Amino acid sequence: MANILNKSPLAPDHFPNIRAIDGVRFSSVAAGVKYKGRSDVMLAHLSPGSTIAGVLTTSATRSASVLNCQEKLGQLSDEGAAIIVNSGNANAFTGKIGTEAMHAVVDAVSEKLSLSPDRVFSASTGVIGEMLPADRIIVKLDDLVRDLSDYGIKEAARAIMTTDTYAKGAFTEVQIDTKTVKIAGIAKGSGMIAPDMATMLVFLFTDAKVPQQDLQFLLSEINQSTFNAISVDSDTSTSDTVLLAATGMSGVSVTEETEEFKAGLHSVMRDLSHLVVRDGEGASKFVEIEVCRAQNDRDAKIHAFAIANSPLVKTALAGSDPNWGRIVMAIGKSGALADRDRIKIWFGDILVATDGFVAPSYMENNGAIYMQQSELKITVDIGLGQGRFTAWTCDLTHQYVSINADYRS
Amino acid sequence: MANILNKSPLAPDHFPNIRAIDGVRFSSVAAGVKYKGRSDVMLAHLSPGSTIAGVLTTSATRSASVLNCQEKLGQLSDEGAAIIVNSGNANAFTGKIGTEAMHAVVDAVSEKLSLSPDRVFSASTGVIGEMLPADRIIVKLDDLVRDLSDYGIKEAARAIMTTDTYAKGAFTEVQIDTKTVKIAGIAKGSGMIAPDMATMLVFLFTDAKVPQQDLQFLLSEINQSTFNAISVDSDTSTSDTVLLAATGMSGVSVTEETEEFKAGLHSVMRDLSHLVVRDGEGASKFVEIEVCRAQNDRDAKIHAFAIANSPLVKTALAGSDPNWGRIVMAIGKSGALADRDRIKIWFGDILVATDGFVAPSYMENNGAIYMQQSELKITVDIGLGQGRFTAWTCDLTHQYVSINADYRS
Repeated sequence: MANILNKSPLAPDHFPNIRAIDGVRFSSVAAGVKYKGRSDVMLAHLSPGSTIAGVLTTSATRSASVLNCQEKLGQLSDEGAAIIVNSGNANAFTGKIGTEAMHAVVDAVSEKLSLSPDRVFSASTGVIGEMLPADRIIVKLDDLVRDLSDYGIKEAARAIMTTDTYAKGAFTEVQIDTKTVKIAGIAKGSGMIAPDMATMLVFLFTDAKVPQQDLQFLLSEINQSTFNAISVDSDTSTSDTVLLAATGMSGVSVTEETEEFKAGLHSVMRDLSHLVVRDGEGASKFVEIEVCRAQNDRDAKIHAFAIANSPLVKTALAGSDPNWGRIVMAIGKSGALADRDRIKIWFGDILVATDGFVAPSYMENNGAIYMQQSELKITVDIGLGQGRFTAWTCDLTHQYVSINADYRS
Repeated sequence: MANILNKSPLAPDHFPNIRAIDGVRFSSVAAGVKYKGRSDVMLAHLSPGSTIAGVLTTSATRSASVLNCQEKLGQLSDEGAAIIVNSGNANAFTGKIGTEAMHAVVDAVSEKLSLSPDRVFSASTGVIGEMLPADRIIVKLDDLVRDLSDYGIKEAARAIMTTDTYAKGAFTEVQIDTKTVKIAGIAKGSGMIAPDMATMLVFLFTDAKVPQQDLQFLLSEINQSTFNAISVDSDTSTSDTVLLAATGMSGVSVTEETEEFKAGLHSVMRDLSHLVVRDGEGASKFVEIEVCRAQNDRDAKIHAFAIANSPLVKTALAGSDPNWGRIVMAIGKSGALADRDRIKIWFGDILVATDGFVAPSYMENNGAIYMQQSELKITVDIGLGQGRFTAWTCDLTHQYVSINADYRS
């Protein structure tokens, strides 16, 4: 168990100042699911009329909660809703017993809050393949309901951490027709996550009034360029869950075409996705990889992730090695269209390769100096079309191996 | 530059005793392409009537030599042939200058051996993106031609090493209609290969008489279950080359249907492919991953490589951690068909997971003891069909990060 991890060197200074969102209340508690001496269960309660959208992992071995959320998303209801989340146990690959444990928790929340079970969403994060001690969560529900507060979001962000080295939150306000709409979110995740841990979880809240279909459209679309554009180690969790709830309490109506809202939601989701990468296991560098002029957007994404996920590129980054040959290698192996002689590569503003060879102006020493930084940008011009995609990743360090190989055994 | 690497703990005791193959002669020389004080160029000369088959990397950024070999393979000729190989420089992503350097070497060999250029195959392995000093090779050709010998294969295997920690060879004899046919091979490779290095190179020789089309068919088919079934770090080289030459000097005719020959070639190719994995960068464990009862063979291969390439699985292996949850994760993310409740997983003979949960008989301590070994077998039964595939890989250790991050920078 990764008990004592130092805060990531890429962590932000502090948790943001998140204002209360009308219609959303939070509470958290130490239920002892696995960890001792820290909170590990959060409850979010949403007022009647809230709409909820979600995107979930596509893993074929997804967890009981993911399968259950999948069934519930898209159903329309005027009721309130709740989100119950525990850390310390992923309740994934736990067979029928795991499904029963998930239902026990959901049903208990439904009863305590007088909601239909279809309005209770759950998520679990932690060890795969161990029985979820549902009773420990259920016995704390009275406390959780009693403690619900407009201001509990920061503690909720802490309760869902597993081996994260800091709590992750983001907030923005957008002006729509002179009125203010708030958008807030919390996230957890730092890889497929350390010893036995699995999952990225993201919970987003707004007081905008958004029809369920519009909410789902916005979430799915923005997810493509935020959470689906990050990679720590190329391993997809069994439990990845992103839920977005809109309470409507601001009285401001928003549709899938409201550009101000879209921009605000994008900024909160992008911030949270970057916070996950910055807490990547063992990460010492935050790296943006922009691929442009690929045959199409799909090819650009394939190239970007081939670079972002290459162990040889990631170890070179860890060593501050301006090893552009490995980027060429990754483009070559990706399977997406490329022509050696049209590829251009930049480190920051430094042109490194062009015309199928190292750029005449490039000096290795400049590349080496650039690579020393902890925030890097690699740009690749494929030179074939208009496709583009930006991915974010981190490096692969000794610390990653230590976290994932040296504990537990 | 990875100057001093200790011999892999998974290395074999010694280079095998490879008997001379009629019609094939070898020489090697220290040309100083990059390394000092060691041989770095090999020449193989093949007698008239030899047929040659090859499989080459599909990378979109493949090297000049790979592109050139591609053009020449499949051409019929009664002439002899030659293979010229250098280490220390991959001549990949070197633009038009690189293509010219490759032609200069090929043309010089063609002239020295009175062969048409179409019968001279070349390969380069080493740094990507640096100019190949063709002159240093060409000036040594007289020595190489003079030194050609029936017994130079072991030295040739040494000359093509980059950061390999040992020379790799394999040999077998097969009886066909009471006559003996010899099959020999050498290989180099230990990942996409350490700092700036790229390539797996394999050269196979036999004195069987095999029509070119049959030879190509056999090589391509057996390649699927040998070299295309291994992975050290999921990174595909720009220069991977496997060439197979048949001199016919044994007088034994072989077609694509000669089972004895097929079995012998398979054994040499499998041995060499395992030798590459055993020299995987930083490897401390050799791991066989057998996936059976997948929907089809293609799905089985996707599952096997999802497991073999997962950084979380590979670091767990490095830590001797019986972390079967990560195998479940890898199956889930692979994209190939799986049903959580039908998957079975074994470590060696130990049933670990079944019916969507940990096996009732499984004891973590037994898994932990099994994982201490340096040769591991993981079996996964998908429970859906008849598809099967076996992949071989190694673990992801601190040493891998050291080799790839700590040098050069």
